[in-house]
Amino acid sequence: MTAAADGLAEARVGPSARREHILDAAEACFTRNGFHRTTMQDLAREAAMSPGNFYRYFESKEALVLGLVERERERGTLLVAEMEGSSDPRGTLLGLIARYFMSITREAAALRVEIWSESTRNPAIAAMTVQTEAESRDWFVATLSALATTPACDPAALYALLAPLMKGIVVSRAALPDYDVAGAVTQIHQLLHAGLDGRLPCPADARSPAGL
Amino acid sequence: MTAAADGLAEARVGPSARREHILDAAEACFTRNGFHRTTMQDLAREAAMSPGNFYRYFESKEALVLGLVERERERGTLLVAEMEGSSDPRGTLLGLIARYFMSITREAAALRVEIWSESTRNPAIAAMTVQTEAESRDWFVATLSALATTPACDPAALYALLAPLMKGIVVSRAALPDYDVAGAVTQIHQLLHAGLDGRLPCPADARSPAGL
Repeated sequence: MTAAADGLAEARVGPSARREHILDAAEACFTRNGFHRTTMQDLAREAAMSPGNFYRYFESKEALVLGLVERERERGTLLVAEMEGSSDPRGTLLGLIARYFMSITREAAALRVEIWSESTRNPAIAAMTVQTEAESRDWFVATLSALATTPACDPAALYALLAPLMKGIVVSRAALPDYDVAGAVTQIHQLLHAGLDGRLPCPADARSPAGL
Repeated sequence: MTAAADGLAEARVGPSARREHILDAAEACFTRNGFHRTTMQDLAREAAMSPGNFYRYFESKEALVLGLVERERERGTLLVAEMEGSSDPRGTLLGLIARYFMSITREAAALRVEIWSESTRNPAIAAMTVQTEAESRDWFVATLSALATTPACDPAALYALLAPLMKGIVVSRAALPDYDVAGAVTQIHQLLHAGLDGRLPCPADARSPAGL
């Protein structure tokens, strides 16, 4: 695309819509080819923009990954807003979890795993991962506290179990073609019910830690 | 290193020890710099071999990753052999799990995540991941069956819960600097005890799947 055409498109859609358009293009490109196999040229081409104009919005692949994670967070915030004012908040939470896992494609799960992998090498992506995790924990612990039906529920311990479980389900979805996502959702639902109703083993129940 | 020096080293250590040496070097290099940032030249240099000789053992980075995963499987087989003839097989299993997670470094966990990520793009690594998962499931389901104290334990369902949980613990170890690995080990131990003793919710207990 020429700079003039870029300018025209810009005037028509505005910078915020243009940013969304670029993020959509980057998500499609990264999802199809992976982060490492994608170049800035590929990304500009996918967005139908000149490289020069493209760089005005995002100066690196890293910046695009950060933009995608940021957008995922914003969408998460919109989703969880559904819970406020719901007449059945526990059911709404279970429904949100089910929708997330039942709708994630293998390719989207693979991109998620790639971003975790990249966060072990890239300080900016690492910082974003840590921040997202902290926000997720705060939200879940507050939500689980509100939904608990007994003081025997330990919301922090329940989240400490759910957090790696949910990450591992994403890894399994990405890496194992026959992975039973619906079965995993059922297991998360069971754990949530059991945890919220105080039927899960809690730290005080632990036997002496064998072999440690 | 020159070809003559290569030949001398070869005569001294033999091809099997040389293969181990190369895998050690590759593991160090991949762990330090990541799979994508490492070149075959880096790997040959790390192994102190000429590129020509190096290629005689492994023709690609992919072949090295497959070699590392294969070696991990062999080591796993040796580890689990500890359980046979143990007077406390449940304690031995808990100890193996604890040792694995307490000893994995962030860098080793990051390499593990990178291999899962790579398996979403590379058919040979994908096939190896699927095979390893199938072997792991068979071994765990047989072992959990043998350790169960009640018919209320569903070994396949227990493994379906543990498998993504263990993957997610590796992701968390790699991506979150403050991740509480010891806490995660305690939670796995509790889940194992509860599952083996029939105290976990099982599929038949599920309420109607809200929101699906």
